Amino acid sequence: MAGRVVEIFDSTLRDGSQGEGLSFSVEDKLRIVDELDALGVAYIEAGNPGSNVKDLTFFQRLATRHLSNARIVAFGSTRRHGVSCDEDRNLASLLEADVEHVAIFGKSWDFQVTGILKITLEENLELISSSVAWLKGHGRTVFFDAEHFFDGWKENREYAIRCLRAAVDAGADTLVLCETRGGMLPDEVHEAVSEVVGLFPHVPVAIHAHNDSGCAVASSLMAVKAGAVQVQGTLLGIGERCGNADLSTIIADLELKMGIRCISGRLDSLAQTCRTVAALSNINIASSTPYIGSSAFAHKGGMHIDGVLKDPSSFEHVRPEQVGSSRRLLMSEVSGRALLMKRIERIRSGLTKDSPQVVRLIEILKSKEAEGYQYEGAENSFDVIIYKELLPCEPFFTFVHYQTIGSLPYADPDSGTSHTALVKARVRGESAIAGAEGRGPVNALDIALRSVLERFYPSLRSVHLTDYKVRVLEGSDATASRVRVLIDSTDGYDTWSTIGVSSDIIKASFLALSDSIEYKLFKDRYDTRRR
Amino acid sequence: MAGRVVEIFDSTLRDGSQGEGLSFSVEDKLRIVDELDALGVAYIEAGNPGSNVKDLTFFQRLATRHLSNARIVAFGSTRRHGVSCDEDRNLASLLEADVEHVAIFGKSWDFQVTGILKITLEENLELISSSVAWLKGHGRTVFFDAEHFFDGWKENREYAIRCLRAAVDAGADTLVLCETRGGMLPDEVHEAVSEVVGLFPHVPVAIHAHNDSGCAVASSLMAVKAGAVQVQGTLLGIGERCGNADLSTIIADLELKMGIRCISGRLDSLAQTCRTVAALSNINIASSTPYIGSSAFAHKGGMHIDGVLKDPSSFEHVRPEQVGSSRRLLMSEVSGRALLMKRIERIRSGLTKDSPQVVRLIEILKSKEAEGYQYEGAENSFDVIIYKELLPCEPFFTFVHYQTIGSLPYADPDSGTSHTALVKARVRGESAIAGAEGRGPVNALDIALRSVLERFYPSLRSVHLTDYKVRVLEGSDATASRVRVLIDSTDGYDTWSTIGVSSDIIKASFLALSDSIEYKLFKDRYDTRRR
Repeated sequence: MAGRVVEIFDSTLRDGSQGEGLSFSVEDKLRIVDELDALGVAYIEAGNPGSNVKDLTFFQRLATRHLSNARIVAFGSTRRHGVSCDEDRNLASLLEADVEHVAIFGKSWDFQVTGILKITLEENLELISSSVAWLKGHGRTVFFDAEHFFDGWKENREYAIRCLRAAVDAGADTLVLCETRGGMLPDEVHEAVSEVVGLFPHVPVAIHAHNDSGCAVASSLMAVKAGAVQVQGTLLGIGERCGNADLSTIIADLELKMGIRCISGRLDSLAQTCRTVAALSNINIASSTPYIGSSAFAHKGGMHIDGVLKDPSSFEHVRPEQVGSSRRLLMSEVSGRALLMKRIERIRSGLTKDSPQVVRLIEILKSKEAEGYQYEGAENSFDVIIYKELLPCEPFFTFVHYQTIGSLPYADPDSGTSHTALVKARVRGESAIAGAEGRGPVNALDIALRSVLERFYPSLRSVHLTDYKVRVLEGSDATASRVRVLIDSTDGYDTWSTIGVSSDIIKASFLALSDSIEYKLFKDRYDTRRR
Repeated sequence: MAGRVVEIFDSTLRDGSQGEGLSFSVEDKLRIVDELDALGVAYIEAGNPGSNVKDLTFFQRLATRHLSNARIVAFGSTRRHGVSCDEDRNLASLLEADVEHVAIFGKSWDFQVTGILKITLEENLELISSSVAWLKGHGRTVFFDAEHFFDGWKENREYAIRCLRAAVDAGADTLVLCETRGGMLPDEVHEAVSEVVGLFPHVPVAIHAHNDSGCAVASSLMAVKAGAVQVQGTLLGIGERCGNADLSTIIADLELKMGIRCISGRLDSLAQTCRTVAALSNINIASSTPYIGSSAFAHKGGMHIDGVLKDPSSFEHVRPEQVGSSRRLLMSEVSGRALLMKRIERIRSGLTKDSPQVVRLIEILKSKEAEGYQYEGAENSFDVIIYKELLPCEPFFTFVHYQTIGSLPYADPDSGTSHTALVKARVRGESAIAGAEGRGPVNALDIALRSVLERFYPSLRSVHLTDYKVRVLEGSDATASRVRVLIDSTDGYDTWSTIGVSSDIIKASFLALSDSIEYKLFKDRYDTRRR
């Protein structure tokens, strides 16, 4: 395999946009195109210019954009039965998109032809052949998407192949074998692709898989082993039902496992590209996503952590830096004392696992976990506890009271809500109080809290929150459920993460905000001492 | 393949508990055991009785529990180098677990032996052989987990096989081939398993895969095709890093795709079992999870919806009922007017796609989507809009004002917060006001809102919320981000889902609560008319 090249064809903006909960603005789409182009995929399927005005606008904006690596592909279908190609609105819109590359899908499963389209098998062959030929006649490079190819291949192999031949004879430049229902297993995909590659040795073959049997990545890789030279999918596996083949995994597998070059950009930009595309798509990347998920190189079991500290390859199949990810060692009762000791050593050296303070910290960790705290991903809240236990000092501040008042004159709901917060604290023996307005109770509280403290601790002015996540811990109690709030903060140099847990979302947020501020103040104090 | 039987070995409570963010109480574990037993898996790996007191307590509680299908397995390791089996604390704890089946892991990759354990290759063989023999001598059925087997097989095949032989010669009952780093591709797994099955034709072989290359499901299935008779994994794929092989997908694939019987319970209980285990594990099932995710049989594209309405098999690889899931047709601008028409027809018949009211509803849908509303999964909020447009009537109520006050005397943070809400509305020409206390601002608002209305609409007394979800729409603004709140409600007969969007979490919640109540009142009014 090594030395071969495989092209990546991203369909996030077309097939991916069929995924539940997805809706891209034109701006989002343009930024996603830039990200994919920088990563160096070969093709970006940008949508169906005939389906709605938004997509047509998008193609017009794309026309003025310079791309370094990727080519834009317009997507549509073979012509409708009963009209000529020249009369077909959808084919015309593909020309209006004004791009060289077009993809059209046609049926290749006899059941779909006679049972859903309700035309004859011969009529379908003619739709394919005339549509491909018409687009070729207009100078386009044509991808023929053989929809339901694998189902057709299983149920009426001869007809499925005739559909491909109709496209090839009419001049199709690439045959795209679509695993539309996503139900095949990888060995079946391998067998079918091998057969097609054998039958059409001079036509590039692409695989387009879906994940309904949980095998889209494997099926795509097996298709490449069988001779496919292009893999279609979406960068995060987004797409209808169980999603398209996840290109983030496939790209890394092809490059790192199979030695096949498939992107022209840097592989170590993969994780960052995925995070940007996820943010633009407004989806969360599952933490367990191979290569790029936040847990992909996270280690928790004591023995695994020990192994990785000795040699990362003992529990990592590739180096996280290769794909732009990083290793994380997670703190929990399972991971044993080794990791806790590492955090403690950052703050105070010279303690052993049996030191009474360490034993006491383990007790605190256990009791906090019993309350619903989990410090994985919010380790700095535990650092605050370590600071307080190991380096006892006058507290930076003591809170006395807060109050939030929210009100909505519903008669005019668009006027916006009013949210105010009042925070009272004692700082260096003084009593201080501040009020603030915000876009919600937590935002108001955040501003009020800083406002009380900034007078005493000017360095807090540089702190701002970069992420705020809410997790409902028990769904069954509905609005009275406990929630876990995670906050990411930065002062421009460092970033840190803190946590709060309560049945009250405001209190949980307050606890996380308060930890964030305390962490910053501890960090400043002891960093200064070390200098 | 059809007619074969494959055993399912669930390791949710052992390997799964290594997953980030997971921590099971003893009660959780017992309930998960009951669920897995009812589903009919063959083995449940329950933990390591030697690792902590919680696991030992769990084994003691398990001893008094009657299981119908599953056998409990205790997990540990081969003895430590430098002590005899009789002196080894870990082996002793396996006996204390007092179960017939035990699994012990040992190294089978030469690098792990010499590089991490730092003993000789011969010493490692002796650890395996003596530990297995000792457990057999104590009457146990022994699974030998060959850790890193596939890496060993690739790098030093002869030694990896010698490790297996050491276990078999000492009496191991099953060879478990562990793909510990998760980096293999399915064809490599197939080749290795075939070879082992050929070498040890009389010993059952199990596959234990991880998902770091995105191929754990496929590799497990290929191992079965190569002759493995047991598949190990976790029900939802939870586990360290990228997770273990997801048994929910594997069970359905084996039963429905390969015709292999693998559970003794009902396959159509799979989705419910997964939801219960997810709730006990406090994790969300990704909507795109094959077979059991909420989007697994969800259709959004207009052409796909049309196809599925004609014949579900056009875009579904299996029937959703086979695994206990159900089909969902999603409403959005992409799905075209067909689906909107279906919702409208439920409320008022006789309209066509071109009726002015329908055109107006499409306009409203588009403008709401532009604000951040998505009615997929919250269709009943859109039903409220349809009711108001198509069946105009005096509003059930008009809100005038709400106010929430939250306060926390932080000096005594354990005393709990006080949250009160005041809601004023006009109902049937009267002005009504009510106040309430709650566990948080949303909870207080929910109670106050009902309290205002129940006097006028007693049927609201039967309504309660069953789920409350918060989604932060833009992470970058932190606490000033927009949030989407989804609420599920029930009156004991029906359940419905509503949505609210705002930069203020309280207002977003209020909008969703208000829609939930209006939907209930509309439903009651028009259901009554039909009667």
